[in-house]
Amino acid sequence: MVSVKTSRPGLLPHVSLPLLNMTAARAWVVSARRAFSSVRPPSFAPAALGLPRSGIREVMDLAWSMESTGSRVYHLEVGQPMFEPPPAALVNVSESVRELPNQRYIPNAGLNGLRSTVASYYNRRFPHLRHTSENVVISHGAVGSLATAFMATIEAGDEVLIPNPAWPNYEMAIRLYNGVPKSYDLDPNDGWKLDFDSLVKAITPKTKMVVVCTPSNPTGTCLSKEELERVVAIAKEHGIFVVSDEIYSQVYFGEEENDQRSEAFSILDCAHFCPDSTIVVSGVSKAYSMTGFRVGWLLGSPHLIDLSSKLSEAFLSCGVPFAQTAAKTAIETCMKEDDTFVQDCVAEYRDRRDAALSVMAGYDSLCQYTPQGAFYCLVSIRKWVDTNKDWLEDQYPGEPASKVFCQELLKAACVAVSPGATFGSNAANFIRVSLAQDHETVVQGIERLCKFIVDETPLKND
Amino acid sequence: MVSVKTSRPGLLPHVSLPLLNMTAARAWVVSARRAFSSVRPPSFAPAALGLPRSGIREVMDLAWSMESTGSRVYHLEVGQPMFEPPPAALVNVSESVRELPNQRYIPNAGLNGLRSTVASYYNRRFPHLRHTSENVVISHGAVGSLATAFMATIEAGDEVLIPNPAWPNYEMAIRLYNGVPKSYDLDPNDGWKLDFDSLVKAITPKTKMVVVCTPSNPTGTCLSKEELERVVAIAKEHGIFVVSDEIYSQVYFGEEENDQRSEAFSILDCAHFCPDSTIVVSGVSKAYSMTGFRVGWLLGSPHLIDLSSKLSEAFLSCGVPFAQTAAKTAIETCMKEDDTFVQDCVAEYRDRRDAALSVMAGYDSLCQYTPQGAFYCLVSIRKWVDTNKDWLEDQYPGEPASKVFCQELLKAACVAVSPGATFGSNAANFIRVSLAQDHETVVQGIERLCKFIVDETPLKND
Repeated sequence: MVSVKTSRPGLLPHVSLPLLNMTAARAWVVSARRAFSSVRPPSFAPAALGLPRSGIREVMDLAWSMESTGSRVYHLEVGQPMFEPPPAALVNVSESVRELPNQRYIPNAGLNGLRSTVASYYNRRFPHLRHTSENVVISHGAVGSLATAFMATIEAGDEVLIPNPAWPNYEMAIRLYNGVPKSYDLDPNDGWKLDFDSLVKAITPKTKMVVVCTPSNPTGTCLSKEELERVVAIAKEHGIFVVSDEIYSQVYFGEEENDQRSEAFSILDCAHFCPDSTIVVSGVSKAYSMTGFRVGWLLGSPHLIDLSSKLSEAFLSCGVPFAQTAAKTAIETCMKEDDTFVQDCVAEYRDRRDAALSVMAGYDSLCQYTPQGAFYCLVSIRKWVDTNKDWLEDQYPGEPASKVFCQELLKAACVAVSPGATFGSNAANFIRVSLAQDHETVVQGIERLCKFIVDETPLKND
Repeated sequence: MVSVKTSRPGLLPHVSLPLLNMTAARAWVVSARRAFSSVRPPSFAPAALGLPRSGIREVMDLAWSMESTGSRVYHLEVGQPMFEPPPAALVNVSESVRELPNQRYIPNAGLNGLRSTVASYYNRRFPHLRHTSENVVISHGAVGSLATAFMATIEAGDEVLIPNPAWPNYEMAIRLYNGVPKSYDLDPNDGWKLDFDSLVKAITPKTKMVVVCTPSNPTGTCLSKEELERVVAIAKEHGIFVVSDEIYSQVYFGEEENDQRSEAFSILDCAHFCPDSTIVVSGVSKAYSMTGFRVGWLLGSPHLIDLSSKLSEAFLSCGVPFAQTAAKTAIETCMKEDDTFVQDCVAEYRDRRDAALSVMAGYDSLCQYTPQGAFYCLVSIRKWVDTNKDWLEDQYPGEPASKVFCQELLKAACVAVSPGATFGSNAANFIRVSLAQDHETVVQGIERLCKFIVDETPLKND
């Protein structure tokens, strides 16, 4: 059975066993060392060593290794849309890669055509803001956008406010660029709404930036226009940057009364946002099911964009041209009046969410709120944790319960979900379920998950 | 006429004018600000602001903007091979992108198949080292490999030894990750050979790593096996990492007596290299003319690879799957016994180098050594600098002469070359010429360059 518990001291610390073929690795080290004198090698950077692995990736790797031995796994762990990208985007890759300029270096900031298309996309919603390509830098997915935004702004010791719970990459990237992540609460008892008292309390003279995410990963909750305006006002009062992660913007269910919008509110909807210190992060991964294309962007002031473009040279040089032309095609195709690609996907996600909530309603309402966007929900595992309290303390002292839960669920029921602890302490007794897989997988996976949670037979020590 | 000299204080510092459509940018700022109160925005990170732009990219951008107004430019500035990638790689992209798994997230460390192929590539040369996929992490080009290597090893204040002259991205990336770049000399009077006295002198208790590059960018000089062994011995003695940038390894002319090798010596040729602290950087960009695919790798200990893979999540998540499958195809195709893709390219580069040297021999031997690999040479501009000393001091006080030279050459002769100053102080009176363009462009461009250098009419103030 696959296990992540064991950790091997000595030669290869920080190596998750399921990731590494130890026999091969040892053979290499032994062979490479054969003729050498014994030398004390230099050490890796403590900050890099200390960076936590993403709990989502840990589960993914475990799930992949189970599959490689023939098991069927219900993948409810990863935010990987299961639709095909818009067909025009695939055709574009095949054609674009045959053109010489698309086999070569492109500008640090990305293809001008794509930058203009992204600007047009925002101008359709916010024509008064008159964005141009000078407001857009293309990055390596939204992950790359965030890393660039942190690089451009954080001085060592600067504090960055992130939601609790939040996507774990925020903390990783902030720490990688020597910032200090500080969290503000989302309220589990109020549908994970932003707790403004907690946000204001978290601000210190060292605060450089606040990150918001709407629709939220991992909760699926959206910020209202009023909430975004409060964020803007607070940021202005304290002279801090706002990074608005809007990668799920188009995956919006909008069912509140009279809500006719096709996208969640953006920070750009706020009349008084500060253009010099507001950074919007987005990309093609989620709305167009193009995660593998790695095309994201930052939208902001020309100064930010120019700085980000310069920074790109140091760790990327530039993006992949034929992935960028495909992203341009996808955005342009989906902007057409009669195109329904995004709406069709969103309708599917809404159905899956409804089905998931309906399954869970039969099990003590393990999810007690209604996600309004993205394709995630946080599910309570408190019942399982309480039932297995003694076993957990005995077998996994100090380990986050939600992480152990995910391993046990995967072993026992072949369902992969992400541990709440990886998103923050407020989600310690939750797991994140992704609704990105097909309807049947989602429903069957959640049935299995719920049964596992409410099963009242405590686990026993061997 | 295009100019980079002007710098505009105030609202948009650090913005190179040719890069930015000022009218559009200003319109955006004005419009976005219209209804807002005046707020003092937070400041960007000084380290990011202070990072120098690559002098190569500056010239490229200038050249591109000249071309956009209809001028023909001789591109001798950028290391962009002008061959098409291996046809099988292009076919692979078209096919691969249509397979669902290649539209989606892949492991942080890259596709397992590509990692194994890279390991096989090294095992062909170094079978006794028995590399496996666990020794390989795929990164976003060799630029990404270097950034990852620095991230994994540098603690704030650690010193990293880099050649002078060196590719400017070393310094940028080291500074981005809070390291301190310190240089050791390559000797301009001895064909840019490594000056070991200078290397040893540069070592302090804070030295964490030494970077070597063979064949070298910007000189084209290769390190001999003996030189590499000295580097290994020094690194061992001082307990520091060695990063060996071997991206040009296959672009090797090998004309010394009895030299039958098809690749430059690698750090892995050294019998006593330390496997735990040796990091090889390479990728598909140069040998296979696939710069736009952005596929590079680190080869090293499983510990390094696992750490790098974890770090990738924080700023990349993962690479582009269909670019990685194409890279795998290219490497496999070119490893076949009867394939001559790389040899054909290298033969062309050799011809261009010979032609370039032969043109320059007619002009006071502006290049006084014979590059043995890569596709660059450093050309002396001392004659032009001496002729224009007064004009330079008057018009561009404090500006690097080689930078001014590049701007003037581009304006006067439409030839783009890279300023020596961007590579380090030892190259202050040189420019780097890239031989990556077609034969005719290289010969004509170098003719124009040489005439411009030896022209004894000093420039006059307006």
